[in-house]
Amino acid sequence: MMSRKAESDLNEISPFAPEEFPKVEPVPGITAATIACGLKSNQAEDLLVVCLPEGTAVAGVFTQSAVTSPSVQYAQRSVAAGRARALVVHAGNANALTGAQGERLVQQICGRLASELGCPDTQVLTAGTGIIGQRIPEAAIVDRLAGLVAAGTDVHWEKAASAICTTDTFAKGSSRTFDVGGKRIVVSGIAKGSGMIAPDMATMLCFIFTNAEVEQIELQEALTYANGTSFQRVTVDGDESTSDSMLLFATGGADLGASGDRAAALGTLRETIAEVAFDLAMQVVSDGEGITKRIEVTVQGASTEADAAAMAKSIAESPLVKTAIAGGHANWGRIAMALGKTHRPVKQDRLRLWLGEHEVVRDGDRNDSIDERGLADYMSSATISVTADVGMGHARSTVWTCDLTRGYIDINAHYVT
Amino acid sequence: MMSRKAESDLNEISPFAPEEFPKVEPVPGITAATIACGLKSNQAEDLLVVCLPEGTAVAGVFTQSAVTSPSVQYAQRSVAAGRARALVVHAGNANALTGAQGERLVQQICGRLASELGCPDTQVLTAGTGIIGQRIPEAAIVDRLAGLVAAGTDVHWEKAASAICTTDTFAKGSSRTFDVGGKRIVVSGIAKGSGMIAPDMATMLCFIFTNAEVEQIELQEALTYANGTSFQRVTVDGDESTSDSMLLFATGGADLGASGDRAAALGTLRETIAEVAFDLAMQVVSDGEGITKRIEVTVQGASTEADAAAMAKSIAESPLVKTAIAGGHANWGRIAMALGKTHRPVKQDRLRLWLGEHEVVRDGDRNDSIDERGLADYMSSATISVTADVGMGHARSTVWTCDLTRGYIDINAHYVT
Repeated sequence: MMSRKAESDLNEISPFAPEEFPKVEPVPGITAATIACGLKSNQAEDLLVVCLPEGTAVAGVFTQSAVTSPSVQYAQRSVAAGRARALVVHAGNANALTGAQGERLVQQICGRLASELGCPDTQVLTAGTGIIGQRIPEAAIVDRLAGLVAAGTDVHWEKAASAICTTDTFAKGSSRTFDVGGKRIVVSGIAKGSGMIAPDMATMLCFIFTNAEVEQIELQEALTYANGTSFQRVTVDGDESTSDSMLLFATGGADLGASGDRAAALGTLRETIAEVAFDLAMQVVSDGEGITKRIEVTVQGASTEADAAAMAKSIAESPLVKTAIAGGHANWGRIAMALGKTHRPVKQDRLRLWLGEHEVVRDGDRNDSIDERGLADYMSSATISVTADVGMGHARSTVWTCDLTRGYIDINAHYVT
Repeated sequence: MMSRKAESDLNEISPFAPEEFPKVEPVPGITAATIACGLKSNQAEDLLVVCLPEGTAVAGVFTQSAVTSPSVQYAQRSVAAGRARALVVHAGNANALTGAQGERLVQQICGRLASELGCPDTQVLTAGTGIIGQRIPEAAIVDRLAGLVAAGTDVHWEKAASAICTTDTFAKGSSRTFDVGGKRIVVSGIAKGSGMIAPDMATMLCFIFTNAEVEQIELQEALTYANGTSFQRVTVDGDESTSDSMLLFATGGADLGASGDRAAALGTLRETIAEVAFDLAMQVVSDGEGITKRIEVTVQGASTEADAAAMAKSIAESPLVKTAIAGGHANWGRIAMALGKTHRPVKQDRLRLWLGEHEVVRDGDRNDSIDERGLADYMSSATISVTADVGMGHARSTVWTCDLTRGYIDINAHYVT
């Protein structure tokens, strides 16, 4: 199946993979083509070129890493300029930490496509994912660009989503539409990510497209909001990549109406983009390397939202919590440990912990009246919900993650090229 | 073999386990006894009582967790009072997050031993390790204390070190001596720790004993120094426990001489304690759960020591770096990723990375002249050294860790009681 591609045959398909690739609506005016250019060891397609109509606005959110790829650096400048005509994504090799040659590659890709499309170089963006520190021969990509532009058709979302995958075990797409003043607004996106996934952000690429006509500043604001409620809330292993890029393109083909109507429509657009981003982020965490269980962690009763988020992330990234859940054990002592190790304030004698509906700790002590058998059954569920109330205040935060299994080790002790 | 005990038979003995338990020198005036009181599932000894001569000074360093055990809370008060007559350690159950019953247990242990020894309650300290959130029946420990005091003999270090183990696959001891003015100063210690190990600190217990006569304030200063250069520098999984305790006891049997001589002898004592602590910390990291390789990470060229330490810790705790090394792969892109994800400053175009002697990255780019075969051979070594120069300044820091393997998963997905 096309949507079940993997960099390595070691990877078993995630138990949370959908039966089939979701229906993703076309965005008028956008074309795309994919090809195999030899970056993936299994000869799968690994290069995606998307062409966008003139006047398309672009917004971006990028990795916060101190070590970033030349693609990220270039795309940051393009986003600042605000317009995009093309996006090039290569998977299997991130073109990160590749020195002057890596920078030249990005310039050549963007230059070649820009002259093909008759636009400024800054209106082409690139993104990459895969091994870090290995150079890509320039001919592998650059010589193929003209052909890919010529071959562009309405976007085949499943092929596009598959081409950007690396260790992913299924292709990820999502789409929503709404109507405004008789016009149909489409928001469609694809994402990739499986390991090296952490808030802020992850080895994660996400590209969302809409036909709405919006100002670049409105688009950036919508993307920042969507990122904060989606990819900032998922973590697989706490590792953050050099290449994370989340881009949002608006072709402007469908206007959002005038004055008051427009403000309401813009609000709807913003929520719709956030929904698509959330759906894609949940697909990423559902494809966490080696996943057997999905985990939702909520910390409430914190003094501040930052405390709640730090404690939720600490639980979600604790190897001991993640392995206990993999083993089906209600080892909630490890959850308390992970709260404590943040050094954020906890009122220990008011601490409460729940696994699903089972309140395992009350007032900082084991709850003797729990239904042990019911709890054991619950721990074998596919999705485990962990809730902590730290008894300090009213702030809360939720983070999604997956368990830590032999599968993660097997994938990452062997994934090289 | 007594030194090869494990909580669970799942655990394979660390390849870094010594052939036999090291020779640990007796510390005059200290007695100890051990017994099995049913906390460990395999009926091994799990309770240690150490009796100390009157006038013994005590210093302590404890977990920084926001969730701490009643033993830690009680011992912190005892250290503030400055004197100790006895230490009680239970392993297999940490007595953490056990509410009022857990607090009462600590009070009962300390009260019973104090009346046995005729000293204030505050001169008894307890420490625990093992499962969090399960209560210990008071009779299991309290009723045995008088017998253990009566049974006390010169410390059998191997038995004492084994009694405090949980998932450890070998018992850990270390000893150094030096002479001052015809008197022999002994520094002998034991430690436990295998998982939930992180700087600041770990599920880690360490008890060091000396016959030197020193002020409590000098002792605390020596311990803080020793901790900073030992257990603060090792990490297994970045998880930090509710129970970490490092205690240093000085019986005062041997004085350090007068005036100028004393200052020099105190300096020697301080370095000797630090050496014993470092040796014990290296034994802990060498017994990291599932270890197949030991890893030494140095970050140099950082702007500040805090930056260097944060970056070294980030590399040492990155699941992707640890799995790559487990697999024997020189996947240095992941090392660069782990540096970057700290968001600490890196001069990317001056970045250099070494694996052992092999300079794999120079000026932020792959070094084409590396000896690929030599590097591949090196990656199969038992101990892997990772060095990064981030090109910002002159600060450096070193952290020790182990690789992340299926063994860690197997131990932690199944270790419950």
